[in-house]
Amino acid sequence: MPEFVRQIPAGDTHERLVCSTCGFVDYENPKIVVGAVVAERGRVLLCRRAIEPRRGFWTLPAGFMEMGETPEEGARREAWEEAQVRLVLEGLLAVYSISRIGQVQLIYRSRFDGPPSFAAGPETEEVRLFEWEDIPWDSIAFPSVRWALDAWRAVGTGPLGAPAGNPPEDPRGTVHLPAEAAL
Amino acid sequence: MPEFVRQIPAGDTHERLVCSTCGFVDYENPKIVVGAVVAERGRVLLCRRAIEPRRGFWTLPAGFMEMGETPEEGARREAWEEAQVRLVLEGLLAVYSISRIGQVQLIYRSRFDGPPSFAAGPETEEVRLFEWEDIPWDSIAFPSVRWALDAWRAVGTGPLGAPAGNPPEDPRGTVHLPAEAAL
Repeated sequence: MPEFVRQIPAGDTHERLVCSTCGFVDYENPKIVVGAVVAERGRVLLCRRAIEPRRGFWTLPAGFMEMGETPEEGARREAWEEAQVRLVLEGLLAVYSISRIGQVQLIYRSRFDGPPSFAAGPETEEVRLFEWEDIPWDSIAFPSVRWALDAWRAVGTGPLGAPAGNPPEDPRGTVHLPAEAAL
Repeated sequence: MPEFVRQIPAGDTHERLVCSTCGFVDYENPKIVVGAVVAERGRVLLCRRAIEPRRGFWTLPAGFMEMGETPEEGARREAWEEAQVRLVLEGLLAVYSISRIGQVQLIYRSRFDGPPSFAAGPETEEVRLFEWEDIPWDSIAFPSVRWALDAWRAVGTGPLGAPAGNPPEDPRGTVHLPAEAAL
């Protein structure tokens, strides 16, 4: 594997990772995570992670957006991969920034496309619909999952207005768990 | 410079660019463009591009989000770099997807932080505030600039609701101009 060194390439303003073997410049850009709060009659779908980080903890179906897809397509793809769910997206529920790790999260409010149906995908141990009062708050994988659940609870089934953002006390998405990087 | 070949790395599901010299996997992720519609008493700020692509055409202050910043910080940084403007962001005006080139655009409605003040940055030939009827529609750099101006016109100074998205006739951000890639 190559060794990268930090340099400012000619004509650039920022330090970049440059391969000492090749000269290849690895522009590190923030990454987009797309995910969904899937609701069904007041219950919300969570996935128990089968992989590190935060294995065994509960999360929303979410993951890195891929090239060639829209954010909405990415959110639907992740829900299928992780929870075997077919989604209808209702709109953008929240935009979160976890700037320390260069991540922007686009979270959609959504519902099942047809009768509720789900199953654990390869990276998931278990998928469940939780009543609000049964959500395992002590076993939530990442802070932004909590934020998104709160945002969903606040808006309910009402019209979606301006998307929620980071809570005021955490505008940069300070991450206490190294785990957040791999949501 | 290295040569990259398209391969599916072990344990992966997508083709990636792999360096034939190093074995380095260059994950191509969608990139985030952050930008602003800057309004002042019904006029809107546009920048005439001093660089290719679309040199000489008018655009919003916008550019690629960098690591370590929030989207809002990125939008303010770009406005400073391109138009020497200090911004107050009022909220998210639009989220656009240009999926063919792997781009998600977050566009903020904003105003000057203090008395209007602007000047061309190094990548800009000219900065101007335009009345709506004076906007040079035939010389706009990218379709999404038009979309954002329309979204701004539709919402005016009223409360920002759900952000605008791609127009229905262009849900994937079909790009007829190769130029869009470098907005």
